[in-house]
This record gives sequence, C-alpha cells and structure tokens, in this order.
Amino acid sequence: MSAAPGPAGWPADYCVTIVGLGLMGGSIARALAPHHPAALWAVDRDPAVLDRARREGVITRGFTDAREPLDRSDLVIVCLYPGDAIRWINENSIHMKKSAVITDICGVKTPLIDGVTPLRDGEPDYVPGHPMAGRERWGYGESTASLFTGCSYILTPLPRNRPESIRLVETLARTLGAARVVFTDAATHDEYIAFTSQIPHVLSVAYMHASESRPVTPFAGGSFGDVSRVALINERIWTELFLRNRDRLTPEIRKLARRLNELADLIDGKDAPALAESLREARRMKEAYDAADHR
Amino acid sequence: MSAAPGPAGWPADYCVTIVGLGLMGGSIARALAPHHPAALWAVDRDPAVLDRARREGVITRGFTDAREPLDRSDLVIVCLYPGDAIRWINENSIHMKKSAVITDICGVKTPLIDGVTPLRDGEPDYVPGHPMAGRERWGYGESTASLFTGCSYILTPLPRNRPESIRLVETLARTLGAARVVFTDAATHDEYIAFTSQIPHVLSVAYMHASESRPVTPFAGGSFGDVSRVALINERIWTELFLRNRDRLTPEIRKLARRLNELADLIDGKDAPALAESLREARRMKEAYDAADHR
Repeated sequence: MSAAPGPAGWPADYCVTIVGLGLMGGSIARALAPHHPAALWAVDRDPAVLDRARREGVITRGFTDAREPLDRSDLVIVCLYPGDAIRWINENSIHMKKSAVITDICGVKTPLIDGVTPLRDGEPDYVPGHPMAGRERWGYGESTASLFTGCSYILTPLPRNRPESIRLVETLARTLGAARVVFTDAATHDEYIAFTSQIPHVLSVAYMHASESRPVTPFAGGSFGDVSRVALINERIWTELFLRNRDRLTPEIRKLARRLNELADLIDGKDAPALAESLREARRMKEAYDAADHR
Repeated sequence: MSAAPGPAGWPADYCVTIVGLGLMGGSIARALAPHHPAALWAVDRDPAVLDRARREGVITRGFTDAREPLDRSDLVIVCLYPGDAIRWINENSIHMKKSAVITDICGVKTPLIDGVTPLRDGEPDYVPGHPMAGRERWGYGESTASLFTGCSYILTPLPRNRPESIRLVETLARTLGAARVVFTDAATHDEYIAFTSQIPHVLSVAYMHASESRPVTPFAGGSFGDVSRVALINERIWTELFLRNRDRLTPEIRKLARRLNELADLIDGKDAPALAESLREARRMKEAYDAADHR
C-alpha cells in the first residue's frame, strides 16, 4: 500500500469513452472536459442523457451502441454497478483496441477481478479502480466536476497489468482531482472498505430503523446529522455492494454490535472509571487516525 | 413541545454571572459581551482563567468565591458538569437575590431537576436549559462567541417557574444565537437526547473500538469522518451524562445493536429485494426527518 505523486499531464491525444453517464460517469466527464481529450465519448442506454451531456459540452459525442466508439478508444472508464460492469467488460472488451486500457469505479474490487474474464497479453488491459467519492443523490443531473476533488482514489492493479496502463489510470485519478492515489490489493481494499465506508452506511440505516420515526428533530444536533447523513442511500447500488462484500462486511457489523452491547453493559454497571477509560481509549484511537490522515 | 420567536432585546441593565468558565461558560460570555450587560461576571476556581477572560474583555470581573457577586446578580448561568451543577445550585441559591433567575446548560435534565432542592415561592427561580452545541475540544481556551449560532436551545421549565423567568432564559438563548428555542418536559428531553446525541457519541466510541486500530486511514472517506468525529470525546463529561441517563440510554444502545444484527442477517440471507426495501425504508425516514427539520 503506497501513495505516489502522479505524472503531471493528461494525454490530450487520447480518446476516452465513459460507459454509464450517471452521477459518477457524468462527474468524470465534467472533470475531464476542461483537459480537452481528443475525444470524450460516452455510452449510455438513455439517449436523452447523452444528448443533454453533448449540448452541455460535457462530452463530444454519445452512443447507445458501445461497439461504435470502442475500436477507437484509448481509455474506457466503466461507470456501471458492479454486476453490470462485469458483464459489460466481458461482452465488450473484444471490440476494443488491443492497446486500450479499461478501468472501473466500483466500491468492491475482489468481485470485479473475479468476475472479469482474464484478458490475455496483447489484449485490452483492465486496471481496477475506486475513487472514494459520492453524494446522497444520483443520476447525471447530480454530477459535478468537483466530485473527486480531494478524494482518495484507490487502485488495485493486477500482476498482469502493463506498467503504462497503471500510470494512465493514476494520471486519470490525479486529473480528476484526487488528493492521493492509494495502491493496494483487492482483498485489503474490500476488508478496509467494509469498515470505513460500508459500516457507516449500514449504521446510518440501522440508526434510522432504531429511530422508529419518533419526532426527534427538535433534539437533533450535529452528531445526529453526522450519523444519519448517508441514510439518504441509493438502495440499488448499496444492496449490491453489501451483498458482494458480505463475507467481509457482516462480521464487521456483528463486531460493532458487540462493542455497542459492551458499552451498554459498562454503563449499566455504573463503573465510572472503567467507562471513562473506555471513552479515553476511543479518543486515543481517533487521534491516531487523525494524525495518520494529516501526514 | 413548541418553538416560539423570542423577545427582541437583551435586558442591558441586568447583572449576569456565569459559573464555570470552560468551553460553554466562556462561549456564553463571549456571545453576551457585545450586548454589554451592566455586569458580566464569572465565577471559576481558576484565577488564571478569570484573569485572562477579564484581560480579553470577555467578562467585566471574575470571582473565585461565589458569594461576592451572587447577591447582586439577576441571572446566574451555571456551566458546570451535572453533579457539580446540582451541588453548586443547592449550596449557593441562598446567597442570591430572591428575584434572581438560575439556569444551567447540562445535557441531561431529569437528574438536574430531581437533584436541585426545590426553591420556594419568593426565592431564586431555576429554569433548566440545554443549548445543543459543543466542540471536540474543551476549556476556556476553546470557547468562541459563535458556538451557539444556529443551535437548538432546549428549555424544560418547571410548573413553579415564573413566566418572566422563562422569558428571560428564552431571551438569553436567542441572544446567544440559537436558531430555535424548544420547550418540552425533562423526561421527553432525556429520552430523545439519548437517541439524537448520546447514541451518536456511544456509536463513535464503539466504532473506534471495532477499528482495532487497523491502518484504515487511506480508505477513509466522508462517512468514516462523520461516524468517527465525536470519538474525540471528553470522557469526564460524557461518562457523567451516560451514567445519569443510563435508564433511557442503554435500551437505545441495545436496540441499535439489534437493528445492526438484523441487517447483518438480511445481508447474510442474500435476499436482495428485502435488503433493498430495508434501505429504502431508512431513506424514507431520513427524508421525513430532513423535511421536518426544514419546516
């Protein structure tokens, strides 16, 4: 796991095709547009979205049939939900230039790597990626050029990846505005992402369930807002992400539930010094994370 | 439970005494100072803090002995931890003007009301309050005039309170910058605050414990920051708040742990439609809260 500064410029002679022009695909297009790629194309099943993006100057051309742009694309960025992304790459890589690079943006990486049929030497190169950015709204209409500004962009390259393919996706990440590009393996990614991203979403959902819609709003301060924010959840993508990472996620959920019950026991036990020490320990851990984050 | 617009101005001829010049007391003093009360006094056991606040023009005079200012104070704002606040009010109300109003800022209200010896008619009037504001740091050095800007300020008046006393504390809340003043009873306050404020703090602590200090920082996005923010916890005040509200808090903690385990069961069961419906239900609840909040 390491973070390295990226190459300076975006290769302006490259033809880029974005597959799926939703929140993520649309935001990538908006962030790339000012760098004037030779072509910035998009594939989407909705012609109205393609038309809007073209009129807005976000893409140079839109296609509902993927075959047309693929044999001229140098970089193909697949912005679909995991299952759709796997199917799309497996069905369409045959239409691409042999020198093309494919990347994706999915929040789970092991299922993608397991699902994508290995491409052989001399075929398009698939470099798995995950920009850690999102919103509580979705669709092209919510896309924004600044979505990736300051984010962590995680790459889980494969042993068979060509070094120049990895460099290209790293350059993409920097060009989109990522503050850091993190290189790791898919298993580590999926384990840690279960904790840092999926657990907060599960928590937010469980917290809403536990609210039982009681009229608590007048008593809601900053910490209520923090914990409930991502309950404005896109159930389609998150259902898929949770299920595809369930072997790593549900042990984390059950561990957190145990830690909560342990705190309840400590409080019911009225042992103030032990409870204070438990809170102090949590603060020390948070301080250590904050220090690591600002390195 | 209701919110009403407050009277316009702060009574500039009032003598105000703040007891305990920490984060909360210091911030109240800073927010009141521009309104030039006839006197803005503070009582603290630390003469250095009093001296600093006086030099900074935040208070007009500081006292380490409470008796001196009390017989001339119209409003006494007790900014101590709950147990200390109860003791202080019981020991010192005898030194106050009979017309004085006492309020506090504690995050639990039933224990305060149960602990403060009932003051009789014609004695100082205790109006319990709770400004929902705080920081992840504490002490006078962290105090800021804007701490209460936009906050909910909750009042749980007692049947014996004089109407003009309640109005005075409501004016205080507005003057400090509260966006809304919420009137409710102590039991409702303590039940809802367990859910909206104490649970997020317990969660943040449990989340840090569950992290087991794994090196997750490169995978930390916005939702990790949200859930972990209040783990920078002041263990002394929160230990006391948790313990004093434990009968309401620990059932909420255990309920949340059950909801988490139910979600884990749903994910392990691989029933995508049921999981999606569960997430959708959480989103609906969050949307309803957001709508209620912006009324």
